[in-house]
Amino acid sequence: MDILGDENSLLETNGEHCSPGHNRKSHHSDLMKKNLNTRLNRIEGQIRGIKGMIDKDTYCDDVITQIAATQSALNSVSNLLLEGHMKSCIVDRIQDGDLEVVDELLATMKRLMKK
Amino acid sequence: MDILGDENSLLETNGEHCSPGHNRKSHHSDLMKKNLNTRLNRIEGQIRGIKGMIDKDTYCDDVITQIAATQSALNSVSNLLLEGHMKSCIVDRIQDGDLEVVDELLATMKRLMKK
Amino acid sequence: MDILGDENSLLETNGEHCSPGHNRKSHHSDLMKKNLNTRLNRIEGQIRGIKGMIDKDTYCDDVITQIAATQSALNSVSNLLLEGHMKSCIVDRIQDGDLEVVDELLATMKRLMKK
Amino acid sequence: MDILGDENSLLETNGEHCSPGHNRKSHHSDLMKKNLNTRLNRIEGQIRGIKGMIDKDTYCDDVITQIAATQSALNSVSNLLLEGHMKSCIVDRIQDGDLEVVDELLATMKRLMKK
Repeated sequence: MDILGDENSLLETNGEHCSPGHNRKSHHSDLMKKNLNTRLNRIEGQIRGIKGMIDKDTYCDDVITQIAATQSALNSVSNLLLEGHMKSCIVDRIQDGDLEVVDELLATMKRLMKK
Repeated sequence: MDILGDENSLLETNGEHCSPGHNRKSHHSDLMKKNLNTRLNRIEGQIRGIKGMIDKDTYCDDVITQIAATQSALNSVSNLLLEGHMKSCIVDRIQDGDLEVVDELLATMKRLMKK
Repeated sequence: MDILGDENSLLETNGEHCSPGHNRKSHHSDLMKKNLNTRLNRIEGQIRGIKGMIDKDTYCDDVITQIAATQSALNSVSNLLLEGHMKSCIVDRIQDGDLEVVDELLATMKRLMKK
Repeated sequence: MDILGDENSLLETNGEHCSPGHNRKSHHSDLMKKNLNTRLNRIEGQIRGIKGMIDKDTYCDDVITQIAATQSALNSVSNLLLEGHMKSCIVDRIQDGDLEVVDELLATMKRLMKK
């Protein structure tokens, strides 16, 4: 059930940058960046589409359906990021004995579940 | 607990267009349209911001937090639309004896809860 | 997409009790009550099962999976109730011109989406 | 933002049982077990209360509100378990180089978000 597909192997080689002491950057692979960028461009287009629908008095129920689709697309982006984050930074920092990252991850997960 | 604020009175005067036989349009008041447009512009900016964060290798956890904020903002838009929709079209159609609208509303609500 | 199945026709004959002035009761059909009771008994059993799993040191991930299943089952109960509620009380009260029920319904839906 | 309170220190001393090769048990501290048991007893009572409400024709909206409260209580139990799980098994297994646990955790989180 790997949602990262091909980017996965690339991800792993980029993990070491998140160890404690590092200034907290996340270096995604180029493939991953391109994947995320494509998805976010599509989401931006969906948002513009929703603005157009409201402008043209589209039936509300159809607009809400389009919003729900956009939210699913955003969820996919956040799942991709979360998976990449866990497989690189989280693993690295835990292996380096930095357990604060677990509290950070729990807080993020709660934020995602409440949104 | 009215989230529509001032637009509410305007909404009501626009309700009659959703009765059966009408070609399913939703005529929001100008105030409501402006409110929704402002919110969606801000969301579009948030999406662009997320793209920039990924491009600049911002720490994943911060990106995910920004995505969660964008999802909350989208939820607010869909709640506004749902409230406007219920207070105009749904009420009108139920009062006109068109009960199919209830199944439509239930399906929409499930979509929103699952997204 | 009717999740009430056979109970649906029975529901309709029970709708008139929710009109304004009535002391806010919800008379489900016997079939609907039995359906809900069976589902809630099963959920009670799931909760007892979860207590047993914790007592026997079952692997956390399996316990959490069981909790997620219980939550899905509770969601089904609340969807059934919501559908019944909308198809009887909500429709009746809207047709009687009592529009306060829309705010009540919106508040309930937000509660369900946030839980 | 520690939701485990006093149980936290006890948890840590119980972590070593989840390393690879172990037959996947989760040994919660007695304090944690008691905490979870109390919460689950209360939830069982809430389910029984909901059955009583339906039996006595309580207004649907009130029943749904009670269901939403029960779901929040179940969410708290699953957050407690998830926190305990991450701070013991997940950390142990990652530190032992067993990275499969990350996919398992991601799958669990998705299950919790979709429920």
